[in-house]
Amino acid sequence: MEFPMSDQALPAPEMGEPYLLTPGPLTTAFSTRQAMLRDWGSWDGDFRAMTRMLCDQLVAMAGDREGAFACVPMQGSGSFAVEAMLGSFVPRDGKVLVLANGAYGLRAAETMRYLGRAHTVIDKGDYMPPRGDEVGAALDADPEITHVFVVQCETSSGILNPVAEISEAVYARGRKLLVDSMSAFGALELDVSRIRYEAMVSSANKCIEGVPGFGFVIARTEALEAAQGNSHSLALDVHAQWAAMQKTGQWRYTPPTHVVAAFLEALRLHAAEGGVAGRGARYTRNRDVMVAGMRALGFETLLKDRWLSPIIVTFFCPADPNFDFPRFYAAMKARGFIIYPGKLTVVDSFRIGCIGQLDEHVMRRVVSAAGEALAEMGVDSAAPPDAAIAERARLAA
Amino acid sequence: MEFPMSDQALPAPEMGEPYLLTPGPLTTAFSTRQAMLRDWGSWDGDFRAMTRMLCDQLVAMAGDREGAFACVPMQGSGSFAVEAMLGSFVPRDGKVLVLANGAYGLRAAETMRYLGRAHTVIDKGDYMPPRGDEVGAALDADPEITHVFVVQCETSSGILNPVAEISEAVYARGRKLLVDSMSAFGALELDVSRIRYEAMVSSANKCIEGVPGFGFVIARTEALEAAQGNSHSLALDVHAQWAAMQKTGQWRYTPPTHVVAAFLEALRLHAAEGGVAGRGARYTRNRDVMVAGMRALGFETLLKDRWLSPIIVTFFCPADPNFDFPRFYAAMKARGFIIYPGKLTVVDSFRIGCIGQLDEHVMRRVVSAAGEALAEMGVDSAAPPDAAIAERARLAA
Ligand SMILES: Cc1ncc(COP(=O)(O)O)c(C=O)c1O
Ligand SMILES: Cc1ncc(COP(=O)(O)O)c(C=O)c1O
Repeated sequence: MEFPMSDQALPAPEMGEPYLLTPGPLTTAFSTRQAMLRDWGSWDGDFRAMTRMLCDQLVAMAGDREGAFACVPMQGSGSFAVEAMLGSFVPRDGKVLVLANGAYGLRAAETMRYLGRAHTVIDKGDYMPPRGDEVGAALDADPEITHVFVVQCETSSGILNPVAEISEAVYARGRKLLVDSMSAFGALELDVSRIRYEAMVSSANKCIEGVPGFGFVIARTEALEAAQGNSHSLALDVHAQWAAMQKTGQWRYTPPTHVVAAFLEALRLHAAEGGVAGRGARYTRNRDVMVAGMRALGFETLLKDRWLSPIIVTFFCPADPNFDFPRFYAAMKARGFIIYPGKLTVVDSFRIGCIGQLDEHVMRRVVSAAGEALAEMGVDSAAPPDAAIAERARLAA
Repeated sequence: MEFPMSDQALPAPEMGEPYLLTPGPLTTAFSTRQAMLRDWGSWDGDFRAMTRMLCDQLVAMAGDREGAFACVPMQGSGSFAVEAMLGSFVPRDGKVLVLANGAYGLRAAETMRYLGRAHTVIDKGDYMPPRGDEVGAALDADPEITHVFVVQCETSSGILNPVAEISEAVYARGRKLLVDSMSAFGALELDVSRIRYEAMVSSANKCIEGVPGFGFVIARTEALEAAQGNSHSLALDVHAQWAAMQKTGQWRYTPPTHVVAAFLEALRLHAAEGGVAGRGARYTRNRDVMVAGMRALGFETLLKDRWLSPIIVTFFCPADPNFDFPRFYAAMKARGFIIYPGKLTVVDSFRIGCIGQLDEHVMRRVVSAAGEALAEMGVDSAAPPDAAIAERARLAA
């Protein structure tokens, strides 16, 4: 198929669309979208080969060099994959310690409640990180806990949780770790040779920069084998999906064929950029340029630098009474940038994502747009209220 | 955005791709795929308006003129939507009578087993239709049954089940009907003013001719309200999805934005073709031309005419020992047509779909291709084995 456009990523606003500074769906490469211009029969050998390629590349991205892990894609959004992981790997008589410091940790706890399986939660509030020693203490205090669930990058604040130290605490006590790496995998390291875990999930439309439509589980085959009979749901049964794929090379139920084709192109671009390291470096640069620019405007980040992820950054809303988030959102959108509301309960905030097909040049324009938006609203200072600063002071460096 | 191609449906093989004569994923219009060339922010107002449009049009397609029904889209494949419907509308102390005459009825029974809720199955085997009077008798015999589940078009044989007479039997006894209209909705009538039911499901990639990535439930709002707290699954909770959408206009979790955009274009084409009646007429013509041509080659259909759906048709494999399905499949694929293996347990069969962006001219070429494929294999007669004819004799006219 021939198109007049190059297969390079085009800057979205040149196409008349805003950039999505949101943590997925995000701005994808044009060639990724072009891969959806063709229909595929899901039963056909051509598509089965695509599924195999997808799984092989994801397992390699997780750093598995010993054939100890397998990838199981799962239809639906990321939350479906999280539920599938919890329902499939936690035995009915298991007990999960859920580490929560934001919406996605709490959603996992809510999932456990639906499942009706034993669980307990360490809830750190809006953004305080769960640390290895408190996880260790909780495990020591409750020998019934079989699994710990952690979110690598808690997208609701943008905090990068200390997965490595948590993993150590978990395995030192003979328990097992399940990781929600939704917004991190592909840009931040979660290498099985360095961080131990049983299974992790992510989805097509985050750091690999595909379009939304499926998630995936990467798990020890040992854990997959042991998962038979655990699931509360037929559709979300990771073991059944894996077993069927091994036998037939097909997804058990109709796959989102076009989304899969787009994902393969996204994987190609990911490799061309230098894999996880290259992708992570670009996002880090995006964050650094954007945060420096916003700080120069007077904005303050919720998190201290040590906890800032290169995925998404939370800023406090300015204390200035002229600041109004809906107006700010509209002014940014008019300039070609879709930003994201905040999720903090204590103070007002908003978020700017660093992921997707965008680079530091785009980030400079984001900062300029923010400056213009402030001026338009008559906001003199972007400084946050004292309460916000006091709140942040609770966070260790 | 400008493209050199017209926004008309292009015949797929002209694009270098085979036609998908499969019951979804199927061959879509090129303009439907083009709608995926743009990224959307799922939180943004523009996308919320798209979701509202989608729901409004689907409810209208179901014939609801009294505002008694609502549409709840659900991420994942069609099976996810079926499970969501069963888990959300059948109370934990309810009991379901599952009517099975093929793979999809049996899958619903398997879903009930996972849910651990009471159910009983009338299993008619590979394709015999469940009839109103036997459903009535089963309900009379078991007052604990609260819901009946039926598949409108059982895609595994292509049979069109008598949903209207089943609905009458169900409501005459004060029970409730849940319909899997996956492969029928949009082409076959399931009008709420003529056929009574609580809820039905279908998906994006069947008769509305979108690309795969989500399903949807159309249900009485009364039933939706009563569904709170029933679901076994957070992700598949239809009540929670509906309640969140009502409040925010957004999908609870990340929607497959590109698939949704494609679906809106598919809906536009559906309306332009004359809605359910127009779409159904084209598929019927596809079936009639294709079945007549295949019969002229000597092939025989599994079903008698009264039970043949305009969705997909099962043919017996020829008795001739030179016939080999993998070779037949490859010969058809080489000519630009992807067909589908059969699912009968008793005799060998294959299936040819009538749905998607194809018309009677394409169907004539399918028949020619089948004739050529037979000649290539050295098959003189496409007549089925006697056992197949004897099997079919069991089916009432
Ligand atoms: C860390 C994390 N977990 C889970 C999810 C849920 O994914 P989805 O919205 O695709 O259901 C997200 C979405 O942003 C996320 O960032
Ligand atoms: C009648 C029926 N029910 C359920 C399904 C399952 O849908 P999916 O394959 O999208 O999960 C299908 C798929 O063809 C179907 O035809």
